[in-house]
Order: sequence, then C-alpha cells, then structure tokens
Amino acid sequence: MSGKLYVIGTGPGGAQQMTLETRNAIEHAEDFFGYGPYLDRLSLRPDQQRIASDNREELERARAALELAASGRKVCVVSGGDPGVFAMAAAVCEAIDAGPEAWRAIDLTILPGVTAMLAVAARVGAPLGHDFCAISLSDNLKPWDVITRRLRLMADAGMVIALYNPISKGRPWQLGEAFSLLREMLHGETPVIFGRAAGRPDERMLVMPLKDADAGKADMATCVIIGSPETRTIERLGQSSLVYTPRFISGDKM
Amino acid sequence: MSGKLYVIGTGPGGAQQMTLETRNAIEHAEDFFGYGPYLDRLSLRPDQQRIASDNREELERARAALELAASGRKVCVVSGGDPGVFAMAAAVCEAIDAGPEAWRAIDLTILPGVTAMLAVAARVGAPLGHDFCAISLSDNLKPWDVITRRLRLMADAGMVIALYNPISKGRPWQLGEAFSLLREMLHGETPVIFGRAAGRPDERMLVMPLKDADAGKADMATCVIIGSPETRTIERLGQSSLVYTPRFISGDKM
Repeated sequence: MSGKLYVIGTGPGGAQQMTLETRNAIEHAEDFFGYGPYLDRLSLRPDQQRIASDNREELERARAALELAASGRKVCVVSGGDPGVFAMAAAVCEAIDAGPEAWRAIDLTILPGVTAMLAVAARVGAPLGHDFCAISLSDNLKPWDVITRRLRLMADAGMVIALYNPISKGRPWQLGEAFSLLREMLHGETPVIFGRAAGRPDERMLVMPLKDADAGKADMATCVIIGSPETRTIERLGQSSLVYTPRFISGDKM
Repeated sequence: MSGKLYVIGTGPGGAQQMTLETRNAIEHAEDFFGYGPYLDRLSLRPDQQRIASDNREELERARAALELAASGRKVCVVSGGDPGVFAMAAAVCEAIDAGPEAWRAIDLTILPGVTAMLAVAARVGAPLGHDFCAISLSDNLKPWDVITRRLRLMADAGMVIALYNPISKGRPWQLGEAFSLLREMLHGETPVIFGRAAGRPDERMLVMPLKDADAGKADMATCVIIGSPETRTIERLGQSSLVYTPRFISGDKM
C-alpha cells in the first residue's frame, strides 16, 4: 500500500508566512520529519508524530520519510523557507532516484513557500527587483573553486547575488573570501544586506556598503544579499533606508 | 497625515498560495491597486475600493497608490507571485526615490509571497535545488544584448535559469533566440520546463529536452526553467516525471 508524502516549507518566519495550502497539508499529515527548530514552528496535535533530526542528515531523513510513506502513512517533510531552494525537495528526489522502485509510486506533493531571500528583500525594499541569482556558499556539497568561479561570473553579469548558507562553525572563512573577491569586481558602495531570521522575533536587518561588509555580521540564520551596479538606496527620515534594484537598466530606452 | 501602504503578492495560484500575513493585510486595507486579473484573485468587500490598471503602467500605478496613502488612506498594491520579483515593490521604490519628500514618510510594508519559479519548481520536483538565477526576458526595460550576455554567463556558470516574461505579443522572437543561444552551450538533453499558471485551474506543466524546446509552448503566464548540466529526470510509472537538481555537484567530495 502506498501512502502520501508532502514536502513543505514553513517560510522563514513561521505561521504568519505559511501559505494556506501548506497549513492544510500540515492538518492532514500524520508523521513529520525535519530539523528540530523547523518542526517547532508547527503546532502539531498530540496524535501527530514528530521525528526531529540534525540539519546535516538530509538524505537519511528523506529516506526514512519515503519508507514510512511507502508503508501507507501520510508523511510530511518540513523545510524552513521554501522546500525547493537548498532544502529537502532535492534530497527527497535524490533518495527516490537512488531508491527502490516502490518509492516512485508514492503520491508526492511538494508545496512552495516563501524562501529567505524573498522575505529579506521585502523587509528592506526591493533589492531583487531585477535579475538575480541564489548561490549556496557551502562547500560541503561542491568544491570552493566552483563557488568562486560562479561568484565572479555573477558579478560580471551584473546580477544581484543572494547567498544562502553564508557561514557556520565548520565554514568560518568562506563569506569573508567571497566579499574580498566581489570587492575586486564591484564598487565599494554596492549595498550589502545581512538579513537574519526575517519575520521572526529575533529578526535583524543590516545594510552596509560592500567596502565595509563584515562576515562577522552573518550567522547560520542569515541570508546575505549583494546588490548589482544598479542597486540604489533611499534614505528616509525616521525610518530605515530602502534598498532596491530598478526594473530597468540605466541608459536604456526606458 | 500619512497613511499606510502595503505591497503584497497573491502567489501564482490565488488564495491557497497566499500567506496568512498577506491575507491579514488585505483585510486591513481600503484601496487596492493592481493589474485586473491579480485583483480578481482577492475577495474584496463592498467597502474596499478596486483600482485596476493595465499591466504595463506600473510606475504610474505606484505613484497613484503613494499619493492616496500620503493622503491618509490604507492602500494596498497587488502583484501576482512575490511583489519583489519583477513586480510592484521595485516600481514603488522607484516612485518614492523620484517623488516628493512626503512619500518617504509613508508607513510602507512589503510582504513576500510565493514567486512563480518556486511554484513551478514544486510542481515538477526540485529543479531549483542548487544554484540558480532569475532573469526577465523582457527587452522593454533593458537592451537585448544585456540579456544575451547574461544568459551566456549563467550557462557558463552552470546555473539553473528561470526566465520570467518569456514571451508576449510585442516580444514574439526573444524566447526562441534564447533557446538557440543556450543550445550552443548546454547539452541537448538538458530539461526545460514550461510552467504555466502554476496552482490555477488552467495550470499546464510541460517538460522537454532543450534540443526540442519550442518557444510556442510559452505564453505570458509561463515561467520557463532551464536545467543546469547537473539537472536530472526521474521517470515514474503512472505519474509525471520528476525533474531535480541535486544538492551536490557530481565528482565532488560528497
């Protein structure tokens, strides 16, 4: 008998940033797999099972969830943000790809959510208002020289750059090196946003020019957005500045 | 007296893909500005004012909304998807930047939403599971040679590419030219997803290899996602294929 597997995202800020279809899936599911702090954002009923695991054991978690769903249970895999952006949806697909044939028959529903860069962008204005990219700075899953090559090509292309997984205890120097590399290619006044825990009580948004960007301002819960040459700042009296990237490219036929 | 301006996104699929904080903002606002079909997704009360305008008049719409908010009203500017991705949040910031000082005092709240590429990705698997970019293919607001240069750099960097505004009556040939250009750089079997109206009754998801990708399959409501060299497809009996990009880069230390 084949059950049901939902893969959902809580949004970065918990209940208020969840979609209605995600809330309905949570209502409907029986067993919940995820990193503990993400599961804490759900208000599970006593009859719903909570199976928390460490954030680094994504593939193992995906396999356990698929196995339980294949046995006929209604299972929910929980990511923070959007499940499709550096999160569990890819891990579930990897596990299906390498797993038993029966896992391909599982009724799989992936539900989109608000990913961190969108929540951070909304808090400070519209820095992702034109072409942008999202890069994971973690070299656990790809070589560091792939990351630096990508950063150079993104800066060369004039893209706004959102960095996920900017720093951790095991990866303390990568963000600083990324800033150094980008300083060689972008103007020192390019706005850099450190968006921490967008939408949560411990939210903190910092904006500083690239020349002063300090990797020490980021932690594991931070999404870093680096502007393009078009990105602008609007000062406001008594309110925080707005950072935005216009919809057009200057000097254009606009 | 200074009022309130919300800038919200409905998500691509209407009510089910809206966040709770967005629904609360809609409850609270008095006047709604937006492209008619986006306003149609809201269930406004008789006492709430609907001010629909053409999709191409974004800056004018932003100015009108700011003016009304500055007069003390609670105003809501409505985008489809996420307001910060090729949408109204940047237009509102542009208008504030060029507008009267009083507009900088308006209490502005931008609320993130589910942008089209996330909804399309969730429907087909996890094609955005690793580094990706979002590019508007519209050359109304930037020169075509900037777009082609960016596409080449993105393909060179191995990014998954999400194309917004792929085609319209006034821009019929650009998507075909983008496919031709990418065929020179990417393998012919690279999966291309045409994700139309994700989450709506008229949703249609098509996946085909780049060598067969036909721009005629896209319309204004389509988000096109082009895989990277890492993107894979999983065939499933009796269900649609899954398309995903692994979290790691092959040949890596994974």
